[in-house]
Amino acid sequence: MSDLPKSVYLNEEGPREGFQIEAATIPTARKIELVNRLAQTGLRHIQVASFVNPRAVPGMADADAVVQGFQPVPDVHFTALWLNERGFQRALAHADRLTLNGSLNLYASDAFLMRNQNRVPEQQRAAQHELIAMYQQAGVKVKRGFITAAFGCNFEGDIPVRRVVQHVGDLLAIADEHGETIDHMGLGDTMAWATPESIKRVVGGIREAHPDLELLLHLHDTRGLGIANAYAGLEMGVRMFDTAVAGLGGCPFAGHSGAAGNVCTEDLVFMCEEMGIETGVDLDALIDCAVLAESIVGHALPGSVLRGGGLRKYRQQQ
Amino acid sequence: MSDLPKSVYLNEEGPREGFQIEAATIPTARKIELVNRLAQTGLRHIQVASFVNPRAVPGMADADAVVQGFQPVPDVHFTALWLNERGFQRALAHADRLTLNGSLNLYASDAFLMRNQNRVPEQQRAAQHELIAMYQQAGVKVKRGFITAAFGCNFEGDIPVRRVVQHVGDLLAIADEHGETIDHMGLGDTMAWATPESIKRVVGGIREAHPDLELLLHLHDTRGLGIANAYAGLEMGVRMFDTAVAGLGGCPFAGHSGAAGNVCTEDLVFMCEEMGIETGVDLDALIDCAVLAESIVGHALPGSVLRGGGLRKYRQQQ
Repeated sequence: MSDLPKSVYLNEEGPREGFQIEAATIPTARKIELVNRLAQTGLRHIQVASFVNPRAVPGMADADAVVQGFQPVPDVHFTALWLNERGFQRALAHADRLTLNGSLNLYASDAFLMRNQNRVPEQQRAAQHELIAMYQQAGVKVKRGFITAAFGCNFEGDIPVRRVVQHVGDLLAIADEHGETIDHMGLGDTMAWATPESIKRVVGGIREAHPDLELLLHLHDTRGLGIANAYAGLEMGVRMFDTAVAGLGGCPFAGHSGAAGNVCTEDLVFMCEEMGIETGVDLDALIDCAVLAESIVGHALPGSVLRGGGLRKYRQQQ
Repeated sequence: MSDLPKSVYLNEEGPREGFQIEAATIPTARKIELVNRLAQTGLRHIQVASFVNPRAVPGMADADAVVQGFQPVPDVHFTALWLNERGFQRALAHADRLTLNGSLNLYASDAFLMRNQNRVPEQQRAAQHELIAMYQQAGVKVKRGFITAAFGCNFEGDIPVRRVVQHVGDLLAIADEHGETIDHMGLGDTMAWATPESIKRVVGGIREAHPDLELLLHLHDTRGLGIANAYAGLEMGVRMFDTAVAGLGGCPFAGHSGAAGNVCTEDLVFMCEEMGIETGVDLDALIDCAVLAESIVGHALPGSVLRGGGLRKYRQQQ
């Protein structure tokens, strides 16, 4: 009936997504505490900070201190985000502690590209060539491609599947031109327009053109469909997801106040494990992290399983 | 790829589910206000109250006044819940204003049946015969069958599919014995154990045995899978859902404090309409009702679209 994967790869973005939208009042030690706890749950990829302008994003002013402060764990990759060369150079300074993955990015929405980056599509493509040159100079491999607003856009409306497929092909070609290979292609539902059916259409369209390309879904839960969209991805065999513990975070630039965060890590782990899909994550330990995340930000977060709990305790009673 | 229905039938239970768990401090006039507003959205079935013991459920002490107070609307069915003969007799007194549908109910979990009703399965089956006699004496047709805890139980653990299929068959047979026909069979994920895959297994198992039986899903969102489970139901062709505006309510008897309410009406309407499935509901009018529901209960409710908004305004800008 479906093509569910045997296991999934979760890229935990909670610390970065979460703390970037909070006021700069969270003590650095508490951010480090969350990262350290997450690294004990079985999660293997944790994005700990973004190297951005602290005047634009005050909550990330302590990014260097967070990166210097966490306790490395074997087999756990700690990563960071950057948006320009300056940020990349800051990340490079922590090459001993961070896994540095080169990332390329096109926008499925020209209107959102202009609004967010002040660029037209040709400029964005040119910028990807420059990014690769920068990565190659630093000895950093390109790992991820990413298509922003792949499922719809507040400033451009519905996005045709063929345009997303075109952008995916463009990004693969740009990498190829420089002898780089994109390991996986992320599809961003940046403004929460996706439905399970549009996930299937877009993933299906890309699969037809690029059958062997590994896809990743970056889903926002603004309209409550995040987990259903993840399920549709699983049905299509997608096995990579960006997630955020407790549903931390959200995109403050996407033009609507209700921007909920990424799909919640423990809710997705719960669904996967209950359906027999391995996550490698200890759900109860992860729920403890979600509770910790709420105590750190000082307000309720959108996750459900952190309140509803898992089912292990009920099964153990039988 | 899937067997999505062309349209869905939503049974709005928000007023009943929501106000039964709130303290008895909400003015009756405000409950009536919500019912009247919901009746203007395109919803055609609205459960307005439950006739239960006001000492056990203080929030429903004004059930008679709520039923007497709403403004009837042509083609909108206003319904009520009762749990025993005394409650049914109270509902009967409002036969001019309420659509009275007889309902039968078995439990897929013996342990929960004992805990909730203090009955063994034979007693519960006997009670269904008595219920039918009561309905027939009052000239009320049996409409709904319902299987409680069809996907798992905090007190019994996982529930085998064959047991649910057996209970469905038993309930159909009980109705048939008295010349009654069950219009649709509800499957309750009473304690939020279901996943999209278990929805498919249970629905598929019942379909095999009873291909023409209309199924309804009553989903709780305690662990964040409500909408994903509804999507799995849609994929199986299920077209009837119990829902609650804003995610009002929850089951106070199910043994865990995180009991979130039914799947949220406007979130499900949003998903359906975006996937081309007709709901008959005006999403923006429904979102206004969800905002009203929050102001009435005086605290945040779990719905997402009520904060994230629909997409109509973005499409109109194009």
